[in-house]
Amino acid sequence: MSVLDLIVGARAGQQRDIARLISRIEDGATDAREAMAALSGFTGRAHVIGVTGAPGVGKSTTTSALVTALRARGNRVAVLAVDPSSPFSGGALLGDRIRMQQHATDDGVFIRSMASRGHLGGLAATTPQVIRVLDAADFDAVIIETVGVGQSEVEIAATADTSIVLIAPGMGDSIQAAKAGILEIGDIFVVNKADRDGADTTVRELRHMIALGQHDGWAPPVLKTVASTGTGIEEVVAAMDEHREWLIGSGQDRKRRLRRISDEICALVVGETRARLSVRAAELDALSSAVLDGSMDAYQAAEQLS
Amino acid sequence: MSVLDLIVGARAGQQRDIARLISRIEDGATDAREAMAALSGFTGRAHVIGVTGAPGVGKSTTTSALVTALRARGNRVAVLAVDPSSPFSGGALLGDRIRMQQHATDDGVFIRSMASRGHLGGLAATTPQVIRVLDAADFDAVIIETVGVGQSEVEIAATADTSIVLIAPGMGDSIQAAKAGILEIGDIFVVNKADRDGADTTVRELRHMIALGQHDGWAPPVLKTVASTGTGIEEVVAAMDEHREWLIGSGQDRKRRLRRISDEICALVVGETRARLSVRAAELDALSSAVLDGSMDAYQAAEQLS
Repeated sequence: MSVLDLIVGARAGQQRDIARLISRIEDGATDAREAMAALSGFTGRAHVIGVTGAPGVGKSTTTSALVTALRARGNRVAVLAVDPSSPFSGGALLGDRIRMQQHATDDGVFIRSMASRGHLGGLAATTPQVIRVLDAADFDAVIIETVGVGQSEVEIAATADTSIVLIAPGMGDSIQAAKAGILEIGDIFVVNKADRDGADTTVRELRHMIALGQHDGWAPPVLKTVASTGTGIEEVVAAMDEHREWLIGSGQDRKRRLRRISDEICALVVGETRARLSVRAAELDALSSAVLDGSMDAYQAAEQLS
Repeated sequence: MSVLDLIVGARAGQQRDIARLISRIEDGATDAREAMAALSGFTGRAHVIGVTGAPGVGKSTTTSALVTALRARGNRVAVLAVDPSSPFSGGALLGDRIRMQQHATDDGVFIRSMASRGHLGGLAATTPQVIRVLDAADFDAVIIETVGVGQSEVEIAATADTSIVLIAPGMGDSIQAAKAGILEIGDIFVVNKADRDGADTTVRELRHMIALGQHDGWAPPVLKTVASTGTGIEEVVAAMDEHREWLIGSGQDRKRRLRRISDEICALVVGETRARLSVRAAELDALSSAVLDGSMDAYQAAEQLS
């Protein structure tokens, strides 16, 4: 099938065509180019939501509960799991996997596991393009689930309209540890597993830390959930809606989208550079040996490849 | 002072000259180039050790205990803390900071906090060059401490000769979560805080998972420590030595160094590309607007900047 056929199918909500289109984009530049050209004009409508937090905090359970809540009001939802351990990407515990299967048979839900790109960056370089495909395929919400302390949280904030940061009660150490990054990037903070000891203390600590920070007109709320039972999820959805309205009303929406596109363009240019390098692997090997043996330094080697 | 003066001072073990040299490298390309050219020939002797693990697992305490053990046998040790929350980089709890100060007045210990580079990558792009400076300054061991689940662990494994992965007892969830990445990159696994409940179970689980994995001739040991009291640290140092001997004996040492240099050269070429992009910020903004408004796609924009 041609890329254009796939786009027609994807626009009509055909799950298989969406999946194939994404694979084409992940696989090759020519197809992706064609697809991007054909998609411009159909995008800009989906609400892109990032869900992140340390391992064990309940990201997948929360994502699943959010999907259920968004479906209940008729939204079409796509989930991108950039987390090798996510049940969405098939890597996790059986119990989780079963919980997710309710969505697997729902035509209004599209689930895709994205490989992260090793040392090239936490989020796959193609993530912005994949989001554009899902946007054009008329999903109301695209949820990106990433595991992470630090690095991927920052990336997800750059990619999402609304970033939800999950915290577990009593994770004082982690809050401390991740403090620098976490407070800057969260638009909504959720203390999950709030039926556990220490939830209120964690909420209080977070509120205190957030109050000390700088925010451009949006005060990030700190909410409590027990995602496994759905408790508090409605409030998270309401906060998501509110944040989106604020984004649009304040002009931050356009600003964030511009930044996202600018990151995407840079990633494509850098990707082009990397692609050129990978073609010259033999030359790179020879230059690396020369540097190791001391007959050349790394800058001289880099110059020869530039 | 000229870069060459600083190099003479650094080679003579002058802490201030080492620090200045590193700052020069972090600041500017011309100085770094000069330094790298002057340093080739003096490097290849230091043992580069990565220490990584989730927040709260005791990375800094373990690093501090390793420094003490290495100093006790007369080794000169450098610590690079690529962790915003590390006491080495001044971001952490007072108690930790006091514990580290014993090293601050020791001439045989050099401590440097490295900023991580946000979405450009966990480890700073200059890390390999900084390691080369420390290597040329005759440190026997360079310990790189990074926080991380996934991403930075992979990076540290690419940068270090020997990667130590720390786990806390009862972190079953985290092990599960990080499984994909963690087992591949650890050369030595350390269950820290081993006086806590569940330590033996965690050791057993880890050993089991490691036994299932593929290893190129080195079977990663799983050790127990209580870093705060120094218990088990000698065994970790012994395992580090053993791993290094294996690296050299098996030829893996040269292989890893070549890969590290090749990564470094690529990072320099990519850095050059990024530098070119940042000079053209206005053009990038205009192209981003064009993509947002649908009059161009991201690939076309990237082509204009390539």
